Amino acid sequence: MSPSLVTNGDVAAVITAPVAGRVASVYSEVQTSRIDHSLPLPSVFRNPFKIVDGPPSSAAGNPDEIAKLFPNLFGQPSVMLVPNGADSIRSDQKLKIGVVLSGGQAPGGHNVISGIFDYLQDRAKGSILYGFRGGPAGIMKCKYVELTADYIYPYRNQGGFDMICSGRDKIETPEQFKQAEETVMKLDLDGLLVIGGDDSNTNACLLAENFRGKNLKTQVIGCPKTIDGDLKCKEVPTSFGFDTACKIYAEMIGNVMIDARSTGKYYHFVRLMGRAASHITLECALQTHPNITIIGEEVAAKKLTLKNVTDYMVDIICKRAELGYNYGVILIPEGLIDFIPEVQQLIAELNEILAHDIVDENGLWKKKLTDQSRKLFEFLPQAIQEQLMLERDPHGNVQVAKIETEKMLIQMVETELEKRKQEGSYRGRFKGQSHFFGYEGRCGLPTDFDACYCYALGYGAGALLHSGKTGLISSVGNLCAPVEEWTVGGTALTSLMDVERRHGKFKPVIKKAMVELEGAPFKKFASMREQWALKNHYLSPGPIQFVGPASNAVNHTLLLELGAQA
Amino acid sequence: MSPSLVTNGDVAAVITAPVAGRVASVYSEVQTSRIDHSLPLPSVFRNPFKIVDGPPSSAAGNPDEIAKLFPNLFGQPSVMLVPNGADSIRSDQKLKIGVVLSGGQAPGGHNVISGIFDYLQDRAKGSILYGFRGGPAGIMKCKYVELTADYIYPYRNQGGFDMICSGRDKIETPEQFKQAEETVMKLDLDGLLVIGGDDSNTNACLLAENFRGKNLKTQVIGCPKTIDGDLKCKEVPTSFGFDTACKIYAEMIGNVMIDARSTGKYYHFVRLMGRAASHITLECALQTHPNITIIGEEVAAKKLTLKNVTDYMVDIICKRAELGYNYGVILIPEGLIDFIPEVQQLIAELNEILAHDIVDENGLWKKKLTDQSRKLFEFLPQAIQEQLMLERDPHGNVQVAKIETEKMLIQMVETELEKRKQEGSYRGRFKGQSHFFGYEGRCGLPTDFDACYCYALGYGAGALLHSGKTGLISSVGNLCAPVEEWTVGGTALTSLMDVERRHGKFKPVIKKAMVELEGAPFKKFASMREQWALKNHYLSPGPIQFVGPASNAVNHTLLLELGAQA
Repeated sequence: MSPSLVTNGDVAAVITAPVAGRVASVYSEVQTSRIDHSLPLPSVFRNPFKIVDGPPSSAAGNPDEIAKLFPNLFGQPSVMLVPNGADSIRSDQKLKIGVVLSGGQAPGGHNVISGIFDYLQDRAKGSILYGFRGGPAGIMKCKYVELTADYIYPYRNQGGFDMICSGRDKIETPEQFKQAEETVMKLDLDGLLVIGGDDSNTNACLLAENFRGKNLKTQVIGCPKTIDGDLKCKEVPTSFGFDTACKIYAEMIGNVMIDARSTGKYYHFVRLMGRAASHITLECALQTHPNITIIGEEVAAKKLTLKNVTDYMVDIICKRAELGYNYGVILIPEGLIDFIPEVQQLIAELNEILAHDIVDENGLWKKKLTDQSRKLFEFLPQAIQEQLMLERDPHGNVQVAKIETEKMLIQMVETELEKRKQEGSYRGRFKGQSHFFGYEGRCGLPTDFDACYCYALGYGAGALLHSGKTGLISSVGNLCAPVEEWTVGGTALTSLMDVERRHGKFKPVIKKAMVELEGAPFKKFASMREQWALKNHYLSPGPIQFVGPASNAVNHTLLLELGAQA
Repeated sequence: MSPSLVTNGDVAAVITAPVAGRVASVYSEVQTSRIDHSLPLPSVFRNPFKIVDGPPSSAAGNPDEIAKLFPNLFGQPSVMLVPNGADSIRSDQKLKIGVVLSGGQAPGGHNVISGIFDYLQDRAKGSILYGFRGGPAGIMKCKYVELTADYIYPYRNQGGFDMICSGRDKIETPEQFKQAEETVMKLDLDGLLVIGGDDSNTNACLLAENFRGKNLKTQVIGCPKTIDGDLKCKEVPTSFGFDTACKIYAEMIGNVMIDARSTGKYYHFVRLMGRAASHITLECALQTHPNITIIGEEVAAKKLTLKNVTDYMVDIICKRAELGYNYGVILIPEGLIDFIPEVQQLIAELNEILAHDIVDENGLWKKKLTDQSRKLFEFLPQAIQEQLMLERDPHGNVQVAKIETEKMLIQMVETELEKRKQEGSYRGRFKGQSHFFGYEGRCGLPTDFDACYCYALGYGAGALLHSGKTGLISSVGNLCAPVEEWTVGGTALTSLMDVERRHGKFKPVIKKAMVELEGAPFKKFASMREQWALKNHYLSPGPIQFVGPASNAVNHTLLLELGAQA
């Protein structure tokens, strides 16, 4: 049923699948070669298998509150797939399943969909798979497309979420839940696969609870997606997309490192995607060995100020200058500012002042700031001060996300170095170059790891739905072993949850997995960083390869975390 | 003699070459795999060859002036290597050769050096190769290192210029020429290989002329380097590094395209390296099919204003909105602003005013601008106006190079769209994301094409020096055929030259090769761009592969230019 590939003699081929979103798209040679790349599956899928329940589960925190919020689901066991001579799943059952992509893109999303599609083809022939368009809004508005073999084909092993697109809407209000119910009833859905991050999986669990509570047959399974790598736990060792995104960024960082060493005159300040947690920055550091790496979680734990961070950089830059190195590479997580308590304080005060007071040109308004905040404000470069005062979001608030931290730090480092030069403690030359590596990492062709991992997540989700499970997140483990040895199961979503108080009510949340300062990846980094600071141990991973060297390398974070668990 | 590779069990290997600049560097698996990748050579090198002179040459322009500037070299023929039963080059001669890297990095530079080294090993055993450190300054200061097999080994097929580093100094004044003479005499150099762009090759020719005029034995050969792709002519079909840089940028652009299509809400404005010519932007457009591409040379030829460029973008954005596409990808060459005559005029007027007048806060100073310039200034976004007024270089001039054109255009497009929205002619949503892809493209691992091309350029340069030639640029042709069929020769540098009047004197220059609006690459682009504008024909080349699909693809510019010549 695969559409034909018409090679056009050049470096590209045309995919002629007539119903696909990528109709008549021209594919590059590398994209084309990936489409037909066949993926191995964990060996449990080679033969009949059964699903074995684990012990009753609890919650990540406040189990009593979680029990109240999820009366139907709380306590249900996580499950594992194990080989079994007699297949415990009815193979003659035809299922109707919906799938939705939620939130920001992550490489591999399309493979989750091809994974569940292939499961249904292989094990529940005659089943139907619907793709909800544009994220959760597609569920609420009942905007969907039937996903056929032809439709899916051009997206196999491809980056992006464009097969059915994604969205950031949430199903939150009673009306929205009602809409979702109407959709699943209208389509007579047996199951729904929600591919998303922490919020989307929380939402998936609420949907599962709601459907179960209303005696609807629709089961809901989640799938861990986010390049940020902050949705993980013991049973879910990593979120998909993290591997590819980090390798794309690491390629660029490695290139910039060689450039730094070749010119000998630039400090490259590289801001990396990842607002909440610094996993991407940490992984990129482990892959490339930069001179300086700031990890947000450490900044927060040590309650560092912006001045501390600047001084840390400047101290290393001065020492490097003494060694004759007036160049270097510095990694900064996108969310750095959010980790610095004094910055949060300043922003809060500014929002207050901007909302209620007149900002006079002579700067008398600054007297309304606390001492600490005024000091910090005046420590900030002019351009950042102006940005804080001028650019507001629709609610009139300061737009912290718009601050280009890498540029701000370059200016602050410059100022401090100038001071030290005048004091005679620095005799080097400094020239900063800023970079933000972000969007280019979210939609690249998935690495072999992400391609296989996602395919297994999707295939496993099919098995969970097929066996009547709900409120689980698809979990594939033992990821450092060959794919054949990977484990497959489902983890009770309620077991990942805690509550947060919002507007006086308890809301269930899956806490973001932050960089653990006691975890193996950070400890490895911490043990190396002094060496990396003063010597140049740059490592240039090069472009992601799909054949040959490093094509099936596992990222450091995963290797170290799984090693540490063993 | 190769140092051993100690695999450390992880994804990297340590190169233990004790004398190398990359001592104890940890190499990634991909880097390691490239080091021992053996390169094919053009078949002319398989057997004895001789060097055949072509007809007497002239100059690219003003031959009379070039003849005066190069009395010893003007008119000398270009040469070709041809197979010959009896080797015409004395193979027992031991040579002393110096090599220098000049200007900005370009992937493949290290392979030029390994190419000439291997030539000397293979054909002039016992020869010595010196590497001048830090660019032409290394020649003037006689700062060099002897390049041995061990020294060169870790840099084979690797990116960057860090083997001997580069620099932007020029050998210009009589004193500097004197220093260069002293160095070549001190080292008893038979030859010097200058790896650089248009300026560096002009300089190489001046050195050749000077040495010849003073009866020094040192011959000088140039080598065409620049990622910008603007050093080329009939005999030199491309400069090295262009292929790799474009493929690195195209990978990122392709990723951003999939992201744009997946989110459906961003216009990505991508500025690409290349100040003088827009070859990189054009090649990336041919590789990826963006919705809008601005080519500086066309803007200049059509004498477009900034308003014209903005309107062109806005017209397409409006049409796309009608089709339901509120997203897209736009490529902008780094040097765009330099191509717009009215901007040049404004900058000149601003420099004049800033130097001599008081800039009052009420803006009365603007009356000193001509009508056209005042209009343009007021058309510019506030932030750019401020940048023009505040940021000056050490000479007090406006810093045009610091203007982030992509951000400026986003603001201008936003303003214009707002206007059209109010007029009722636009009902879409617009959100711009800015990118600059620059430094990450200069030092990547060279593509197979650049690796082979550079190796042949270096190997050929060895042959030219061995046969006593001077004032030539190493020329490798027939580049769309398999490497075995590539032609090897040397082109008289004087034949590429014209003169420019500077400070009342004629200066020889190799004119930069700009994008030809009548050339095949631009015509291909022009024939496709309307289709690309409104339909989404995005092509995502993916990461550069060293094995398998597309690993030996030739770039479009070269394919089209060589096809057009045939």
